[in-house]
Amino acid sequence: MSILIKNVLLEGKKRNIYIEENLIEEISEVGSIKEKSVEAEFVIEGKDKAAIPGLFNAHTHAAMTLLRGYADDMQLQEWLSTKIWPTEAKLTEDDVYWGTKLACLEMIKSGTTFFNDMYWHWRGSAKAVTESGIRAALSAVFIDGFDEERAKEQMKRNEALYEESKKMSKRIIFTLGPHAIYTVSEESLCWVRDFADKHDLLVHIHLSETEREVAECVEGYGMRPVDFLDSIGFLSPRTIASHCVHLSRKEIELLKKRDVKIVHTPASNMKLASGRMPYEELKWAGLHPNIALGTDGCASNNNLDMFEEMKIASLFQKAFSGNTTSLPANETFALATRNAAKIFRLNSGVIAEGKLADVVLLDLKKVELVPNHNLTSNIVYSANGSCVDTVICDGRILMEGRHVEGEDEIKNKAKGVAYELVK
Amino acid sequence: MSILIKNVLLEGKKRNIYIEENLIEEISEVGSIKEKSVEAEFVIEGKDKAAIPGLFNAHTHAAMTLLRGYADDMQLQEWLSTKIWPTEAKLTEDDVYWGTKLACLEMIKSGTTFFNDMYWHWRGSAKAVTESGIRAALSAVFIDGFDEERAKEQMKRNEALYEESKKMSKRIIFTLGPHAIYTVSEESLCWVRDFADKHDLLVHIHLSETEREVAECVEGYGMRPVDFLDSIGFLSPRTIASHCVHLSRKEIELLKKRDVKIVHTPASNMKLASGRMPYEELKWAGLHPNIALGTDGCASNNNLDMFEEMKIASLFQKAFSGNTTSLPANETFALATRNAAKIFRLNSGVIAEGKLADVVLLDLKKVELVPNHNLTSNIVYSANGSCVDTVICDGRILMEGRHVEGEDEIKNKAKGVAYELVK
Repeated sequence: MSILIKNVLLEGKKRNIYIEENLIEEISEVGSIKEKSVEAEFVIEGKDKAAIPGLFNAHTHAAMTLLRGYADDMQLQEWLSTKIWPTEAKLTEDDVYWGTKLACLEMIKSGTTFFNDMYWHWRGSAKAVTESGIRAALSAVFIDGFDEERAKEQMKRNEALYEESKKMSKRIIFTLGPHAIYTVSEESLCWVRDFADKHDLLVHIHLSETEREVAECVEGYGMRPVDFLDSIGFLSPRTIASHCVHLSRKEIELLKKRDVKIVHTPASNMKLASGRMPYEELKWAGLHPNIALGTDGCASNNNLDMFEEMKIASLFQKAFSGNTTSLPANETFALATRNAAKIFRLNSGVIAEGKLADVVLLDLKKVELVPNHNLTSNIVYSANGSCVDTVICDGRILMEGRHVEGEDEIKNKAKGVAYELVK
Repeated sequence: MSILIKNVLLEGKKRNIYIEENLIEEISEVGSIKEKSVEAEFVIEGKDKAAIPGLFNAHTHAAMTLLRGYADDMQLQEWLSTKIWPTEAKLTEDDVYWGTKLACLEMIKSGTTFFNDMYWHWRGSAKAVTESGIRAALSAVFIDGFDEERAKEQMKRNEALYEESKKMSKRIIFTLGPHAIYTVSEESLCWVRDFADKHDLLVHIHLSETEREVAECVEGYGMRPVDFLDSIGFLSPRTIASHCVHLSRKEIELLKKRDVKIVHTPASNMKLASGRMPYEELKWAGLHPNIALGTDGCASNNNLDMFEEMKIASLFQKAFSGNTTSLPANETFALATRNAAKIFRLNSGVIAEGKLADVVLLDLKKVELVPNHNLTSNIVYSANGSCVDTVICDGRILMEGRHVEGEDEIKNKAKGVAYELVK
């Protein structure tokens, strides 16, 4: 398959982008279309459109779309124990499949072509991602509740899923998902560490999200969370730590030393009043390239719109630091694109020859993008997901003119599943 | 003109809404359409749609759409003195007209049917509002720079504009716009007070936005800003104070005692790192019904999407107070609807018989609104302006199926004006 995007705005200039198979084969000046470009099977008119890399949602629980708006504005523990956990306990693989289908649809419609997930019923998520056409790093939630039997089950399950994943679409990256230090035993964390080392896997964990987590860790292990994980050799360049709100200076230095990757989840941290990831401090420590951006699940956000997340990220950092220059638009855009690509070891995150063909076209006629003094500013501070017109992932057109194949069926089925779930 | 909205979701129930002239004449159960409803000139199918009141943007500088994305991420004073003020000094009435046209278009497209403005070249704004079909409270910026001559000019200009406004569309409310205590002399503030008293006018002022404003006030007048305004008898139930970030306990009590109205502008306060309006404290003082919500101008937001503003408001209050139950969705929705209607003395803000026909229909098939466990939660935490399908204001259909008359011309002209301005 080949696609030619004609006459599109790319970093301020009009360009033709030629895609062959799943790669960006050639970027050329308008008026100099080479022969092979002319032969493209699909031609997309790029007039009044701008090309940007597909966005990366680096931390979510995709199928939680099913719980969007089900419970909000509650005390954290009450919310979890009376609303979220009891509902999640009833989830079937089919529920997760439809919830993830809905999430993939929402992400495509808002220009996201990759997400990093941690959820129950891994196979349901994997099936949905395979069908959707986008990419995902998928981990099964690993929780042993400090129970040896449960730990063994989880290990076996992860070994089995890892084997299964090898036969799946290359768009799916199998990762390990130890939930957090307060739900996974030290023995299991060590197993995760070794299994990840052996197979060169990414490890996705919630880390230092709340003050309570820190306090309990200090009480239980006599150390703060990052210190504890380092003491068991858990931290590596393959560790993807979501949230990282409560960090000591020493912990920041440790994260840098171990080249740990960090996912900032501003909307969720704000809604759950967890606190703020210390962006400036991490940046001073040289960790900016290691930071990506995520929405978290729809129970605590409540959408998957990475445009909105970028804005909230910049606003949150400025408001809390009291510094208007903190997390400027270009740095925020990097969190959602090239930083994330590097973190997830994908040859993408920028639009350039030889990169994966994960391309989003923005509709520059959307009122939020008018005038266009500065596209990056408009993307971060003014746009929302509805400014996306076309989405290409892995060289396949997933949305054009905001039309996604099978959209109505996904919404109807997911709705049915969601209402049944909370009944 | 009469409009029948058939079979639409209204507060959880399927209803027919019948509009005659500019009022909601009748709301009836589906299946019980009365005769006059059947005779409507325009019939809108409400299936898969929900009716909500048009949203109120209670503080903005509409024509600043022209400067969207022109300058961000800078130190406040440098941003104002090197970017915003020099550009504003070049503005013509025609610029403001096109900038406000663009703003009205953006607001219609995101479900806002009223805005409270303060800007230069009042006539340009008024002309744009008249044509757009939405409502606005419009004030000319009153700045005398503590200069007697300038003060006299401003008074004359406001007297003249007030007279002009009487002949204008009833959708336009003339208000007085003394910019702030640090740009307007005490004498002029007293003139504003008296002129407003005499003609029963609303008075729109920036108040206690930054720490610097408070510090300078204490230095200059020996009092904090609210105390100072009260000392000259300025505060009244017609005072609309935007921002109100830095308030002492005594000032909060004063605001309550004088029944002052307050506009919360979370995105702007975050982006400009001004601090946070103490919502919980104002609520404890009984001021919740006096609070509305505004986007501020597009130079400091950078859009006019009240859905996004609602989400940021709730998130901001939760994050800063550390309390997940602060500013829950239903209270936030009230800020953007019925509270604002009362503040601006409009018979609207809810959908009920006898109210002004300012009605917005949401497209419930938008993925952000699926599933629909709780519409208010979805509106505040998940939706964005693109979820709006239809907008009716003052009994006129301004948008249907997201189509607004003359949209392309407005965007093209405004773009041209904007690029010329910053050249």
